[in-house]
Amino acid sequence: MNSFIIKGDICYSADKDDLLTFEDSYAVCEDGVCRGVFREIPDRYKGLNVYDHSGMLVIPGMVDLHTHAPQYAYRGLGMDHELLDWLELYAFPEEAKYADQVYADKAYGIFADAVKHSATTRAVIFGTLHREATELLMDKLEQTGIVSYVGKVNMDRNSSDSLIETAADSLKETERFILETADKYKNTHPIITPRFVPSCTDELMEGLGKLCEKYDIPVQSHLSENPSEVEWVKELCPWAESYGAAYDRFGLFGNHAKTVMAHCVYSPDDEIELMKRNGVFIAHCPASNMNVASGIAPVRRYLDEEMNIGLGSDVAGGQTLSIFTAMVEALQVSRLYWRLVDDSKKPLSVPEAFYMATRGGGEFFGKVGAFEDGYEFDAVVIDDSLLPHPQELSLKERLERTIYLGGDIRALKAKFCKGIKIA
Amino acid sequence: MNSFIIKGDICYSADKDDLLTFEDSYAVCEDGVCRGVFREIPDRYKGLNVYDHSGMLVIPGMVDLHTHAPQYAYRGLGMDHELLDWLELYAFPEEAKYADQVYADKAYGIFADAVKHSATTRAVIFGTLHREATELLMDKLEQTGIVSYVGKVNMDRNSSDSLIETAADSLKETERFILETADKYKNTHPIITPRFVPSCTDELMEGLGKLCEKYDIPVQSHLSENPSEVEWVKELCPWAESYGAAYDRFGLFGNHAKTVMAHCVYSPDDEIELMKRNGVFIAHCPASNMNVASGIAPVRRYLDEEMNIGLGSDVAGGQTLSIFTAMVEALQVSRLYWRLVDDSKKPLSVPEAFYMATRGGGEFFGKVGAFEDGYEFDAVVIDDSLLPHPQELSLKERLERTIYLGGDIRALKAKFCKGIKIA
Repeated sequence: MNSFIIKGDICYSADKDDLLTFEDSYAVCEDGVCRGVFREIPDRYKGLNVYDHSGMLVIPGMVDLHTHAPQYAYRGLGMDHELLDWLELYAFPEEAKYADQVYADKAYGIFADAVKHSATTRAVIFGTLHREATELLMDKLEQTGIVSYVGKVNMDRNSSDSLIETAADSLKETERFILETADKYKNTHPIITPRFVPSCTDELMEGLGKLCEKYDIPVQSHLSENPSEVEWVKELCPWAESYGAAYDRFGLFGNHAKTVMAHCVYSPDDEIELMKRNGVFIAHCPASNMNVASGIAPVRRYLDEEMNIGLGSDVAGGQTLSIFTAMVEALQVSRLYWRLVDDSKKPLSVPEAFYMATRGGGEFFGKVGAFEDGYEFDAVVIDDSLLPHPQELSLKERLERTIYLGGDIRALKAKFCKGIKIA
Repeated sequence: MNSFIIKGDICYSADKDDLLTFEDSYAVCEDGVCRGVFREIPDRYKGLNVYDHSGMLVIPGMVDLHTHAPQYAYRGLGMDHELLDWLELYAFPEEAKYADQVYADKAYGIFADAVKHSATTRAVIFGTLHREATELLMDKLEQTGIVSYVGKVNMDRNSSDSLIETAADSLKETERFILETADKYKNTHPIITPRFVPSCTDELMEGLGKLCEKYDIPVQSHLSENPSEVEWVKELCPWAESYGAAYDRFGLFGNHAKTVMAHCVYSPDDEIELMKRNGVFIAHCPASNMNVASGIAPVRRYLDEEMNIGLGSDVAGGQTLSIFTAMVEALQVSRLYWRLVDDSKKPLSVPEAFYMATRGGGEFFGKVGAFEDGYEFDAVVIDDSLLPHPQELSLKERLERTIYLGGDIRALKAKFCKGIKIA
């Protein structure tokens, strides 16, 4: 059923520094699993249907390790404050609207449509604290064909009256959310989602840690994004050696299940060590690093230390769902980091940005983000002829240019997830 | 002939802090000149043709104060070096190709087509040192309908053998360029273009200053972009108090004619004073500030001190001609400037970015960049319904979102320059 071949100009990351390019070649998908890239179709696959995308780029689907579905409604608005004020002024009031299923239906419909037409095939997504609306979001995401983890958000302190739960209600609703969604979908899965330490009492965190262990559910949250936030966590959790340790104490830091933490701009050494020990994934979100004036995450260090790292769009701290834009911004801020923060930290390369957007983030989902034998077959086909040029360009240069100028959704010609054509 | 009315949701800057919005209103153009924006059509204009763009945004055309036409061919490529290496490795080899009119015809055709389909109505543009190719570029730009200044570049030192002139040849060719183009076009004008101080001997600079005075031709160049470049200028011109003073000595710093200097990332106080005294325009180019790792220009200071400032795409230091992208990047880097460089310098606001992109840069061209009575009528019409939303948005919010997400050229529905519909 899900066996076919895509012909085109194929690129993927063998490793973080090693971008492989195959002109006019064949990527083979057998039962949803990649069997590799070949210059000629091997005899054993000669009967398979060939999607002929000659002259177009064929790359792994993009992986978005961090985004907020309810905030898509106000993407590109209200970036005139840094994190904590921004949450109060924009994020929380918007998220409160998702108590209303009619609003949620409309807004999540727009979000899911945008996901469907993007180059993203895998995503880790925040909902709101509302269980019903978050399940509606999951219904809609399932229809896009992408694979996602979606969280009902937990928050029982330091929020507005219209967007807060008690610890007991939050845990009850979260357990119900898990029971209702864990086996409901083929591609859409629940994830435990404490908003961030300032939003969750110790009681709530402890309960979430238990749910995580009991149901073997992964975890997403925010970590060390902004200096005021880091200070606040110190005040709230004087017993914690670091912000990360405040998750770790409750088993929410890669202890029981895989965990992704967004940002990690100000992670101290001991927090980084803890992340390495527990295999915590970092979602680097360069757009929101800039938009809410957080600063720049030290990605060169994370890459050099072989940590798990991918990219996040972080809508609406980020203005767009495009992981192409996230790659460009990751490259750009890495150059400012080198110039303005630490000139011993070499700027990122295009292969490194591409690795984070595909294979690096893909590892959160298993064998995802490359066209190697045994990898789940996620692919997007991009017609880069919309970017005319007078000179000859190598395939690597065409990919580089597509990354820098890939914002035009007209260029996306086909999209596959787990070997199913979904756009 | 060029008298008409556009109906739509109209926005323009009254001043750098003051963004005016007029829903469902009428912008009147009489003989190519704006007569203002009205809630109802005044009796005296009732006979004019009305372009009905109800529900769409109507804003001034974008102004690009700094870009390199020959570098468009390698936009989005080779950003892995800082300025001086980048020039040698990428810019100079590409520009050398424009000795060949066949290549120039092809490449400048692609550039002009991109300009035509952009939201830009005014631009200040570098060619190469080749007079013929630069005149070909001007022929093509004239056909786009936008108003532009275009420079044959001057460079007689510190370049490769394939991209260098003698001072005498450079001056002779520049004078011929001025004589051949100054009255040839309606909308396309010559501008004197010393590449930057490291590329021009004192002899060449002195001759260019004389041409500037003799023919009353404006000037464009680069200023204080990168620390190594600034140091190099100190070595090359030990007699100059600042990089800017090295232009000033030869009358190329707003002394005889209006002048625009790109970047000004590292301008010291005395250079800034000189710029203020001479009314020099600053082209702020945030993309290349990041891409070639220059650092971040102190734009808050320039705005607070009421200097002349607009935005530049700086292709191919910048990856795109889009001035929408330049606005977003200007906002983003201003937040990093506040966080990482000087927290006394408040980040830019959306109205300030919009001002620079329209009225601020427009001043280089005269009364350009606003829908006030007496301004030349430049306008673009943007269909922002491509950005769906579940909630009500104010016109100011729609504009803000369009700036952040305005990259989609499908949204551009019409474009007018000096009262002529050009797209």
